[in-house]
Amino acid sequence: TFVMAEENLSAVLYSPGDLRLVHLPVPEPGPNDVLLQMHSVGICGSDVHYWQHGRIADFVVKDPMVLGHEASGRVVKVGPAVKHLKVGDRVAIEPGVPREMDEYFKTGKYNLSPTIFLCATPPDDGNLCRYYKHNANFCYKLPDNVTFEEGALIEPLSVGIHACQRAGVTLGSTVLICGAGPIGLVCLIVAKAMGASQVIITDLFPERLALAKELGADFQLKVTKEVEPKQLAKNVEDSLGVQPHVTIECTGVESSIQTAIYATRSGGVVVVVGLGNQMVTLPLINAATREVDIRGVFRYRNTWPMAIAMLASGKVDVKPLVTHRFPLEQVVQAFETTRQGIGIKVMLKCDQKDQNP
Amino acid sequence: TFVMAEENLSAVLYSPGDLRLVHLPVPEPGPNDVLLQMHSVGICGSDVHYWQHGRIADFVVKDPMVLGHEASGRVVKVGPAVKHLKVGDRVAIEPGVPREMDEYFKTGKYNLSPTIFLCATPPDDGNLCRYYKHNANFCYKLPDNVTFEEGALIEPLSVGIHACQRAGVTLGSTVLICGAGPIGLVCLIVAKAMGASQVIITDLFPERLALAKELGADFQLKVTKEVEPKQLAKNVEDSLGVQPHVTIECTGVESSIQTAIYATRSGGVVVVVGLGNQMVTLPLINAATREVDIRGVFRYRNTWPMAIAMLASGKVDVKPLVTHRFPLEQVVQAFETTRQGIGIKVMLKCDQKDQNP
Amino acid sequence: TFVMAEENLSAVLYSPGDLRLVHLPVPEPGPNDVLLQMHSVGICGSDVHYWQHGRIADFVVKDPMVLGHEASGRVVKVGPAVKHLKVGDRVAIEPGVPREMDEYFKTGKYNLSPTIFLCATPPDDGNLCRYYKHNANFCYKLPDNVTFEEGALIEPLSVGIHACQRAGVTLGSTVLICGAGPIGLVCLIVAKAMGASQVIITDLFPERLALAKELGADFQLKVTKEVEPKQLAKNVEDSLGVQPHVTIECTGVESSIQTAIYATRSGGVVVVVGLGNQMVTLPLINAATREVDIRGVFRYRNTWPMAIAMLASGKVDVKPLVTHRFPLEQVVQAFETTRQGIGIKVMLKCDQKDQNP
Amino acid sequence: TFVMAEENLSAVLYSPGDLRLVHLPVPEPGPNDVLLQMHSVGICGSDVHYWQHGRIADFVVKDPMVLGHEASGRVVKVGPAVKHLKVGDRVAIEPGVPREMDEYFKTGKYNLSPTIFLCATPPDDGNLCRYYKHNANFCYKLPDNVTFEEGALIEPLSVGIHACQRAGVTLGSTVLICGAGPIGLVCLIVAKAMGASQVIITDLFPERLALAKELGADFQLKVTKEVEPKQLAKNVEDSLGVQPHVTIECTGVESSIQTAIYATRSGGVVVVVGLGNQMVTLPLINAATREVDIRGVFRYRNTWPMAIAMLASGKVDVKPLVTHRFPLEQVVQAFETTRQGIGIKVMLKCDQKDQNP
Repeated sequence: TFVMAEENLSAVLYSPGDLRLVHLPVPEPGPNDVLLQMHSVGICGSDVHYWQHGRIADFVVKDPMVLGHEASGRVVKVGPAVKHLKVGDRVAIEPGVPREMDEYFKTGKYNLSPTIFLCATPPDDGNLCRYYKHNANFCYKLPDNVTFEEGALIEPLSVGIHACQRAGVTLGSTVLICGAGPIGLVCLIVAKAMGASQVIITDLFPERLALAKELGADFQLKVTKEVEPKQLAKNVEDSLGVQPHVTIECTGVESSIQTAIYATRSGGVVVVVGLGNQMVTLPLINAATREVDIRGVFRYRNTWPMAIAMLASGKVDVKPLVTHRFPLEQVVQAFETTRQGIGIKVMLKCDQKDQNP
Repeated sequence: TFVMAEENLSAVLYSPGDLRLVHLPVPEPGPNDVLLQMHSVGICGSDVHYWQHGRIADFVVKDPMVLGHEASGRVVKVGPAVKHLKVGDRVAIEPGVPREMDEYFKTGKYNLSPTIFLCATPPDDGNLCRYYKHNANFCYKLPDNVTFEEGALIEPLSVGIHACQRAGVTLGSTVLICGAGPIGLVCLIVAKAMGASQVIITDLFPERLALAKELGADFQLKVTKEVEPKQLAKNVEDSLGVQPHVTIECTGVESSIQTAIYATRSGGVVVVVGLGNQMVTLPLINAATREVDIRGVFRYRNTWPMAIAMLASGKVDVKPLVTHRFPLEQVVQAFETTRQGIGIKVMLKCDQKDQNP
Repeated sequence: TFVMAEENLSAVLYSPGDLRLVHLPVPEPGPNDVLLQMHSVGICGSDVHYWQHGRIADFVVKDPMVLGHEASGRVVKVGPAVKHLKVGDRVAIEPGVPREMDEYFKTGKYNLSPTIFLCATPPDDGNLCRYYKHNANFCYKLPDNVTFEEGALIEPLSVGIHACQRAGVTLGSTVLICGAGPIGLVCLIVAKAMGASQVIITDLFPERLALAKELGADFQLKVTKEVEPKQLAKNVEDSLGVQPHVTIECTGVESSIQTAIYATRSGGVVVVVGLGNQMVTLPLINAATREVDIRGVFRYRNTWPMAIAMLASGKVDVKPLVTHRFPLEQVVQAFETTRQGIGIKVMLKCDQKDQNP
Repeated sequence: TFVMAEENLSAVLYSPGDLRLVHLPVPEPGPNDVLLQMHSVGICGSDVHYWQHGRIADFVVKDPMVLGHEASGRVVKVGPAVKHLKVGDRVAIEPGVPREMDEYFKTGKYNLSPTIFLCATPPDDGNLCRYYKHNANFCYKLPDNVTFEEGALIEPLSVGIHACQRAGVTLGSTVLICGAGPIGLVCLIVAKAMGASQVIITDLFPERLALAKELGADFQLKVTKEVEPKQLAKNVEDSLGVQPHVTIECTGVESSIQTAIYATRSGGVVVVVGLGNQMVTLPLINAATREVDIRGVFRYRNTWPMAIAMLASGKVDVKPLVTHRFPLEQVVQAFETTRQGIGIKVMLKCDQKDQNP
């Protein structure tokens, strides 16, 4: 039988630059919760941004906050109203949990609920710790052939799934992805799995493009800041042979969003995933008169079940994304690795007795 | 039997400001065409813009061009391959005719075909004349209870239909319409006919808002250039009681497009109908993270049959939009009326023997 | 201040034919519930069917069950977790409340959740009583200009809304409705409000067709059992001038469903609302090769807010549907009226002190 | 330079069982046509059915008709209005060509146009011959890395694409395919390419299931005529672990269509591809109350470009489907092979000088 540890080592951000490992109480699950022994937690660019700047847009870290939201763990305690999970189950965690049964929740768009709980978005704590409780309805059991790390990677994978769904990627789609960072790469993997025939990906750095090629990108286009958006759009069409049906913009850079619009085929879609400045200057008439839709994404919704299905079937392989691993005790070193842009995905191992993938 | 007139008085634009009535040959219909004796042709803002400036964006009047594209007439000659029309039929004219069977046409989005013929868009002639030939497949027979002027008004009405369709207006939708000009008003009429529960409309001028009220707007909001977009968005919510599901922007003014984004409910849609500057600065993160889609329109597609059905059933009444009528001979005076913003829709009467609505 | 009555007169079905008024305890609302003093409850065909037969399909009344699910009332007590309602609010009740946060709920299709609570569907009690508690998230506040009876009618209206949404009724749609009973009539009202240009309705009885005409049906077609489905489909086309885009089948009779398929335009939709025998013989090849989709409905989802918006705006008028009223004390007489097919909608008045509409 | 052959050997069906090779004139292309030297033509079950029975449903072979509609060839002559093809281009042929610019064509559903030309559907000739002319807009240039036989297989592949699109197959979909014949197998291939996580396929014959396994089916279920539909549906769920989101019915057998309905998850879709008897008895209430949609397909539309994109990218492999090849001269032997159900796809080689794949 499980004996609860007395301490709960947690990665807490106190203020910009001040990330500490502290002992917090082990939480008690409510009726609809499960208590999880955390296993693997990936570091996201937003975690690093909070660490460096203490805020993202209007979300400001005012009180100490546990970081981490790309996570998986094992159930160690089950709230009395929980039916579908039991102690010992390995689960992936969907970090957004709607708090109210509002119009968004009732219509299946719960990610847009203004009162949603979001791990590691102030003031809500994340799960980069030893023990964490979460609403059991947003914990999804992993099959035996899906690892904890794959489980943790469902979070970034979900960003790619939601983006590709919003884009309407389907059989035979041609796709432009702007930016070959972790999110660009998961979009690439998902677009291919949804039937895209050709994907072209852009980036400033050749080594990121080389990795994209390994992961299945059909064309890679190195961009430089000097080239005009209209010219880049032309280069995309020249490489691909046609204008892409869909563009997924993952950089948030104004000139890249402009390129995305110019490059996309009439009647197509630009999905805005990367976020930069609040105000952006766009060639709106170009987009509007060619009926190129501009659609944003706020995280994801209803993606965990399909992500697990894809991972279990072996149709999607995200394992190559993990390039670094650190034990939870070395959290600052791990964050520093991500901050420097080394590798793709850094994974923190929170279970002292099991640091396997 | 019909005896063809020897002359074909036509309103031809030679250069900015130089609009003349000249006699052109009566055209001969091709195998798939019909020759029409024109009856009623409405003046559109774009006609006036060509008259004043000789161009719209990249479309430049280089050679003399007949104006007019909101039109209806009577069939006087039928090409040998035409089956569904006969001499004497009263028809409304869809001014855009795809020239190639490309991917856009095959997928039902023929308005996006880059080689489409468009009446009164250089270098394609319009139909503000006595006799005009047109592809019979884009001429739609009018029932007896739909007048020629209603037939001519199907063109602006179609802009409203296509905008409301792209917006996804449906039963119970709350709708913000920015701008109470002719296009804003047809959007209002169509939104109501598609089931919108509440429509709020904005404009700079009280008299235009008063007219919108008569045509069914539930709320009118007078805007001034001094008020910030975020504040205007707040005013919209205060008037309506909720944020609108859908905003249809008909002004093309940057601050109004910004207001449109701020005002729209998360998960909603902003449709860009009005066109202003090529480059527009937008609160993109606000739109993207709330999944407010930005969708443009390029004219319309497949709207004539449903417009005729609505007019014939009496469910939509566009007659109040016609405020002025001039015989074709007074075309310059008619254009001057529209240019001064007097009334809503000015109708030119091209048939000397029948100047009825 | 409100003083709770000591008794709760309730219409309880004990076994087929055995409907009694009994005193049940006044229920205590849970944290997310409200307690309602019931005002108006309409009688549905399913209530009468349970009364007569004790079952519908696999739903069998084994234990005594309170009937009634078309209802509205006034909040008299509020659970501690409820934020959006307060004592005194007038509300309409959505009778289906999902019990689990399963895939259906998360994707906005909560009506399909297999464990959903449904008023007056065994073993779940309905609300034909003096006091009733319900999940506050499924109680919707009525504006001042919407009556209690209109609130109660939102339930049948919702069947029409969901059917028309599933059918894709939109601007200019031509619609065939089979059956001019209460559900056929709400489908008629909703189809018109969603922009249908022409609605043709069929029935066996001329007086029901006459009523449909009053409520806006453009064509009425009296059917007889002798006429073959293919011939009836032809008659529909002859009346309407075209084949309908959409057919809403509200009778559940096999020959009428066959007619619905034959009558519908290629690429159109047949929505199956009426339920008859478990097994039905259909012209499947005719439907399949013309891509006429066959879609069912299970009640409704997310319809209350839009229904309230439509009623408040005056765009939809359901008041003429109420033809009879009885105090709760005369429940058997009221049921007998519905059983005999007299009038359209019979309303039971549950509040002794306010029997107004 | 190309020297036109003087003869055009063609496979002509005169009456049931009477299939002859005769010399027909080489046709002259019209302005929008190309003349093709045929290369590879696959035999479809419908070709064999016409050969055996002289009719399919209401389509009756009254006059001699050339068979064949799964075809590819090389352009040898180009009509004067054709711009996108030139002599020497290798093309795949879409056999359905709309004749009228009706509502179906204008809305992108040209396959539903009642006057459409369809190769080898009486009275329209097919392309199992040496030389064949076709509307150039429905001939699609093959890239160098796509073979003629792959080009010919786009026709059956298109059936699979259209079925999977109508079904809404997407990332993580679970799919049941009833019937492991050629059409079931292309549906399997396409469903996997569109992101289906798990596909289960049924058939009476183990050898067909074995082949399906090789082509990627995750589960195979051998059915027998004795097992009840409800039990088979249960077996599907037991194998798959869940009910499938989507079922694609390729047998046309009544009991299998019933199984399809029972097996499909609430809110899912059954696509009817296989055609059997005109009238079919279905568990309609089961489908309707669980909102399981029943959708048919009529061939395909707009599938060639995406099929070519998929074949060129190597994401879809249809080559294993070709199990037999015969020169055109042995057409009867080839038809006999298909009739006996030997192998999967029999390919006829029409070019005497190039009988390669």
